[in-house]
Amino acid sequence: SACSSLQESEKKVDYAQAPSAAEMQRVSPAFAHYTNDVVIGDLWQRPGLTPRDRSLITITTLITQQQAVELPYHFGRALDNGVTPEELSEIITHLAFYTGWGHSTAAAAILSDVFKERGIDNSDLPAVPANPLPIDRESERNRERLVEDNFGVVSPGVVDYTTNVLFRDLWIRPGLAPRDRSLVTVSALVAAGQAEQVTFHLNRAMDSGLTQAEAQETLTQLAFYAGWPRVFSAMPVFKSVFESRGLES
Amino acid sequence: SACSSLQESEKKVDYAQAPSAAEMQRVSPAFAHYTNDVVIGDLWQRPGLTPRDRSLITITTLITQQQAVELPYHFGRALDNGVTPEELSEIITHLAFYTGWGHSTAAAAILSDVFKERGIDNSDLPAVPANPLPIDRESERNRERLVEDNFGVVSPGVVDYTTNVLFRDLWIRPGLAPRDRSLVTVSALVAAGQAEQVTFHLNRAMDSGLTQAEAQETLTQLAFYAGWPRVFSAMPVFKSVFESRGLES
Amino acid sequence: SACSSLQESEKKVDYAQAPSAAEMQRVSPAFAHYTNDVVIGDLWQRPGLTPRDRSLITITTLITQQQAVELPYHFGRALDNGVTPEELSEIITHLAFYTGWGHSTAAAAILSDVFKERGIDNSDLPAVPANPLPIDRESERNRERLVEDNFGVVSPGVVDYTTNVLFRDLWIRPGLAPRDRSLVTVSALVAAGQAEQVTFHLNRAMDSGLTQAEAQETLTQLAFYAGWPRVFSAMPVFKSVFESRGLES
Repeated sequence: SACSSLQESEKKVDYAQAPSAAEMQRVSPAFAHYTNDVVIGDLWQRPGLTPRDRSLITITTLITQQQAVELPYHFGRALDNGVTPEELSEIITHLAFYTGWGHSTAAAAILSDVFKERGIDNSDLPAVPANPLPIDRESERNRERLVEDNFGVVSPGVVDYTTNVLFRDLWIRPGLAPRDRSLVTVSALVAAGQAEQVTFHLNRAMDSGLTQAEAQETLTQLAFYAGWPRVFSAMPVFKSVFESRGLES
Repeated sequence: SACSSLQESEKKVDYAQAPSAAEMQRVSPAFAHYTNDVVIGDLWQRPGLTPRDRSLITITTLITQQQAVELPYHFGRALDNGVTPEELSEIITHLAFYTGWGHSTAAAAILSDVFKERGIDNSDLPAVPANPLPIDRESERNRERLVEDNFGVVSPGVVDYTTNVLFRDLWIRPGLAPRDRSLVTVSALVAAGQAEQVTFHLNRAMDSGLTQAEAQETLTQLAFYAGWPRVFSAMPVFKSVFESRGLES
Repeated sequence: SACSSLQESEKKVDYAQAPSAAEMQRVSPAFAHYTNDVVIGDLWQRPGLTPRDRSLITITTLITQQQAVELPYHFGRALDNGVTPEELSEIITHLAFYTGWGHSTAAAAILSDVFKERGIDNSDLPAVPANPLPIDRESERNRERLVEDNFGVVSPGVVDYTTNVLFRDLWIRPGLAPRDRSLVTVSALVAAGQAEQVTFHLNRAMDSGLTQAEAQETLTQLAFYAGWPRVFSAMPVFKSVFESRGLES
């Protein structure tokens, strides 16, 4: 019967659950200590970034690294820290292009449950915005020419979608401020270990208002969530960008 | 009792499920729109690659990036697009070596369920083929000498397995055409962010019949499934290979 | 009722389960053959590394690549091969910093279940050790100066945590021998595709007692579990380190 066979299935472990405090303690009192006293008690309290920015960086990292276990908690925390449901919707959409369709699809399934629990529903948001942001024509022309010159013969399909779907459509959606969209993009690149793509997007982020101090502290948040090595590989690129902009340190 | 405790466990969310259309819409009408109108409605309909090739690239990316949520759907789609059960069996086997044993083990658990639903069973396939493909002795001698000279003193074990298990055993299995095996390998390398390993395998793919136009469109498919940054890091390598072969563009 | 709705949920596939032998055979007799005859029957029996070291490398790879499906089996195997519960606790803690917080959190949930099944409980371990290992002051001063000079202006937060939480706290925890802690770190770097970070940590591993023969065979173990391309990208770095130390081959 259903019930007798369910006794079996009850034994199945659902690994998609985060460990409880008692389970963390059973496995590693040290890990529980670092989580409570260093990450939650110290890192998240640092003044260099708002809790909202830390949430943007953290959920981006979790989506990019497919860390489903922590996502329900951090989606909720992001909402509590002032990230709006529409912004979460945009981040999921944006990261489909910047980390792969499957990562965002998996994250959408989780966010859907978080939304249900909180009675949130984005269904009425427009799929195509009525009032897209303006395009900076000169910078877009430069970007397009550079990509066309370098890669037009390598993959016309990629170059075409990059222009028409990414930079003249996705990037001008008004649901996420350009500075936040760039912060999400830079965080995804560092989390994926793609320091070689950071220069363009970090410059774009700083052109859109991300300060050098915020960029510096973004690395600090990423060190814990994406891992130290990802950040150490990205630091030389951040350094070059800071130097090329002539900023103080 | 079993039933009362199951009421608890029912609340557990199974994150390994793909979101329904309604859930996608709840989370992000934009993401639903891009999925339906750009990816399914446009990308998959482009003439540059057969749907079967697009399926090979897509399931390779999903296995390499551990995107379990989309795999059941795309294994089914691959079968519908003409990838045979034996070819799926070979891809799982091949990717164990090229993305890590655990990735293929996880994918095998999913494929097993897809096969059960469709009444497919590969159990009778030979584990060791009776008639392996011929080895191109000269190219294999060159490959072996290069690896031995470079890395024989670095890891004799790796060099030995590379020759005896990979190139004189795995690669000559007849269950997957050499052109398809190379397409899968190149896709896995791009999806894993390992552009530095692409040159050898893209040349091998093109030696086995992958056309330049197909390679170009492979990047387009990968842009959506592996994410734009992976493809932008791979494009310079594809460009060099195209140029070294003196092909038109 | 609970029971009738559970008949539905029973149908849900739990993808976090490893495939059974019959399921492996149904999907790919070849993959089952390679797993049994090459990986279990040959690789794990090679004399170049102890089974305990192979377990350290393997669980590190599985945690780093988020391969949850194989972790329950390999945590159990690690315990059977002589890795102590305290060492597993330290590895989870260490990898939080070296592969990202979410990876270790997910692994902690799985290890908690393995511990429960075996009646193991680490709750009484000290979160902060009473007797930390001594710091090699000269080498730590050099490391600190190098990082401060290179990156002090890039991210003061990262540099500060690197010194105070990583090298003057995490690395001197006595629960994992320095040689093993470095072996875990090197394995994580190779598995994550970060060959560019290997030089410092491979030297540190060999300074702490990892022999060249063990380092060579570490690559062999990693080839199967992290995938061939990760290892081929790391081999030139291992080669440089071996040569810089003037070791025989």
